[in-house]
Amino acid sequence: MRVLGIDPGLTRCGIGVVDTQPGRRATLVHYDVVRSGADEPVERRLLTIASGIEAAIDEFRPDAVAVERVFAQHNLRTVMGTAQVSGLALHAAARRSLPIGLHTPSEVKASITGYGSADKRQVANMVTRILALTETPRPADAADALALAICHAWRAGTEVSPARGPVTPAQRAWLDAERSSRRR
Amino acid sequence: MRVLGIDPGLTRCGIGVVDTQPGRRATLVHYDVVRSGADEPVERRLLTIASGIEAAIDEFRPDAVAVERVFAQHNLRTVMGTAQVSGLALHAAARRSLPIGLHTPSEVKASITGYGSADKRQVANMVTRILALTETPRPADAADALALAICHAWRAGTEVSPARGPVTPAQRAWLDAERSSRRR
Repeated sequence: MRVLGIDPGLTRCGIGVVDTQPGRRATLVHYDVVRSGADEPVERRLLTIASGIEAAIDEFRPDAVAVERVFAQHNLRTVMGTAQVSGLALHAAARRSLPIGLHTPSEVKASITGYGSADKRQVANMVTRILALTETPRPADAADALALAICHAWRAGTEVSPARGPVTPAQRAWLDAERSSRRR
Repeated sequence: MRVLGIDPGLTRCGIGVVDTQPGRRATLVHYDVVRSGADEPVERRLLTIASGIEAAIDEFRPDAVAVERVFAQHNLRTVMGTAQVSGLALHAAARRSLPIGLHTPSEVKASITGYGSADKRQVANMVTRILALTETPRPADAADALALAICHAWRAGTEVSPARGPVTPAQRAWLDAERSSRRR
């Protein structure tokens, strides 16, 4: 399964694409950061970021898109831009009828490192090990996007079940589709 | 000048279109509210709202789009959805190269009623009078969108100047274009 992870941001939006195989194996396909200048009007910045997201989806044709779930209580200064970009990311994926997973930072950390309060460096180090890279992906936004993509594949494939916490309707549809394809 | 105002929201997104003439006159072209169901996944809701916004822009072909400026400190429960929709609204307008104005609720209230702390009913009543309607536009989101559109035209045409407070780069570009077209 190919998953495209998006770490939404107006200044730097991380994009990471991984292919995952059974047995929690994952290989790197691509990572990048789409940037926009703080001196530009917000609508121009949104256009730049959305174009970068759409180009990545259309180039790498993922089976699912994973987006970080944003909360209003964090980083009040930047949260509006982050929320606007997350809206564009969700919209770009939905317009292409791609299954979508929203994962909180804690869920990503727990899935990748085993505990939900891991710091950014620990997550980046685990992403490097999981993908057997020789260097840690930089900047951190790119590593976070890869972590999101890996987390999505692992939670969807093996970890998430109705008893194990929230499953979005999109995730449920994806799980059902995945299960039915396995039965064939 | 035709202005399309957008009061962003995930449950109800207000859209209002007005034609404005010199001397602070304005006539109603259209108003509507795009709705999405709270039981749907967020990406589907965003798709519904964005489609409604894009359809209105393409049908009514405004000269400018006015969007309410959202702040993280208000309505923490709904602000994420509101911010996501505002991102989609700005993106839809920017993709069509339309001039954009962002106005705060206080700016809209001050522009329409004369004071920045007017309540929703007072704003709706003034919108009804300005547009010479026989009934107050409902729901409130539609009246707010019309107020935004009127506010944008009035601020852009006569009130906004570099000395009078924040002007976004987009507003400035629009003002310049409007001034140069007046000189012709």
